Amino acid sequence: MIPVIAIHGGAGTITRADLSAETERDYHAALDRVLQGGQRVLEQGGDALDAVTEAVFRLEECPLFNAGKGAVFTHAGTHELDASIMDGRTLGAGAVACVKTLRNPILAARRVMEDGRHVLLVGEGAEAFARAAGLETVPNDYYFTEARYVQWRRALAEGRAGLLDHDAQALAAQPEPIDADTKMGTVGAVALDARGNLAAATSTGGVTDKRAGRVGDSPLIGAGCYANNRTVAVSCTGSGETFIRLLAAHDVSALMEYRGLPLAEACDRVVMEKLPAIGGRGGLIAVDAQGSVHMPFNTEGMYRGSARAGGSRLTAIYRNAKDEGRG
Amino acid sequence: MIPVIAIHGGAGTITRADLSAETERDYHAALDRVLQGGQRVLEQGGDALDAVTEAVFRLEECPLFNAGKGAVFTHAGTHELDASIMDGRTLGAGAVACVKTLRNPILAARRVMEDGRHVLLVGEGAEAFARAAGLETVPNDYYFTEARYVQWRRALAEGRAGLLDHDAQALAAQPEPIDADTKMGTVGAVALDARGNLAAATSTGGVTDKRAGRVGDSPLIGAGCYANNRTVAVSCTGSGETFIRLLAAHDVSALMEYRGLPLAEACDRVVMEKLPAIGGRGGLIAVDAQGSVHMPFNTEGMYRGSARAGGSRLTAIYRNAKDEGRG
Repeated sequence: MIPVIAIHGGAGTITRADLSAETERDYHAALDRVLQGGQRVLEQGGDALDAVTEAVFRLEECPLFNAGKGAVFTHAGTHELDASIMDGRTLGAGAVACVKTLRNPILAARRVMEDGRHVLLVGEGAEAFARAAGLETVPNDYYFTEARYVQWRRALAEGRAGLLDHDAQALAAQPEPIDADTKMGTVGAVALDARGNLAAATSTGGVTDKRAGRVGDSPLIGAGCYANNRTVAVSCTGSGETFIRLLAAHDVSALMEYRGLPLAEACDRVVMEKLPAIGGRGGLIAVDAQGSVHMPFNTEGMYRGSARAGGSRLTAIYRNAKDEGRG
Repeated sequence: MIPVIAIHGGAGTITRADLSAETERDYHAALDRVLQGGQRVLEQGGDALDAVTEAVFRLEECPLFNAGKGAVFTHAGTHELDASIMDGRTLGAGAVACVKTLRNPILAARRVMEDGRHVLLVGEGAEAFARAAGLETVPNDYYFTEARYVQWRRALAEGRAGLLDHDAQALAAQPEPIDADTKMGTVGAVALDARGNLAAATSTGGVTDKRAGRVGDSPLIGAGCYANNRTVAVSCTGSGETFIRLLAAHDVSALMEYRGLPLAEACDRVVMEKLPAIGGRGGLIAVDAQGSVHMPFNTEGMYRGSARAGGSRLTAIYRNAKDEGRG
């Protein structure tokens, strides 16, 4: 079994016209560094769980992505973050939602899973749990980035509550009103380790200008995150509510286990057929129990990458991934 | 198509030895009144959605059940409620979690679904949304009942955080330490209407002495509540975290749609095999697109009932439902 990891940094309207060559290089470099972290864990014999935790930790630390540092603004001008993790070996899971002071929500989700008493903790209860577990807290303005601020002010000015957003650069450069359906931001990782264990992790800052207390698919097991050694590990990004209504991540697993579909067919059924049928936009990354990787999306682009232990790292942004990054 | 509704009021260690004949009669009478409300909606040509809303509204209003009035106490001595609803026709869904001032969380969940922008709102954000929608608010001590208070004090005294609970009477009467795995409380309803539409609704006060911010399966679409006209409507009750990890409600639907299992087999696979395999206790109620009803549970009892339009109402508590209620 050759270990493998795949990551994403959000899907949406990401076209070559939107991104400067320099920005494009920045994203490829960032994705490569994230992949490298997860790949190293696997190469050193680490667990799939540790690999996805490391990758999502790095995505949270990188201001380019809408999770941790770089999270978007809520309507109130604050930041509310969500994260989840699942262990395909035990079906153990942990998640936090609406946290405002945790530097790395994914580490809190991991602790919730390890603690085992609960799966989902929200708000101040989640923060108290994480503080008691010794996790690092930050003031809410830690998450501030100029790019997200500009994007929030623009959304406020346009009075478009609930704007889905991913790409601050594209927004800042875009003079016309923003299409609420084309901007998504979430990060995630899926991995298979040498012992055949699958794991998935997802983290997000939500949607720009979102209503207080709105929870999307990212912290919801089976919606934005799912792992089961019998089938697949999945992390999603997109218009969260549609992923919740379809149980998108669990549905991929169910199509494989119960209908016998191969990985790519199961993923494409959900992303290319079932999601669009209810107006859903976005994508997912998936690795199955045999180590196959599939990363479909129904948007113009999805920040993504994958790497096998000992292999090269591939990163991609657009639909046609030819000529994209190789680390 | 003969419309049908089924309801539950929680599962757990409910034995004839625990309940006095008078308490037993009270529960049967309460379940019958709830069923009657839902049945009447269906008989008057109402939607499955309206029938489950009416039934869960009545369960929330009844102090015997752990939802709305009668909700259990959190560790902090307060009440935090969750509810969800799903429309099998559109796969529309709405849910609220950790609300403290809404008289009927199920009505808030319904408004979230009708509003359509979000699926899950938590905490103060959910309450602000519900207030803006004109729903009735109450002070947190509205939910107080003497029976739940006794039960909470007992849990506190025993230092057993996260106690799962349903039956206040049994607890108050029980001198020995409470088995944390045997007491569950949630309410729910599923229905099929004359037009072939399925709907499900679930509501809960959570678990006695729970950690602030803990969210169980009840407000999570696919875990404690799911409806899809192609397959089934499901509402769950039990040890919430295990239902989340299995996506119990969605799994029943997936087993029917993808593996072709009949209703009872799909439900039993989840409740009698998959849940116990990960330590899960509880049950569910389900009605399929053909109007079959199945209500399995792996505990000693589950408060439950069902009725067809124009038919008699059956209510039951124990495993062997002979000689139980008929309204």
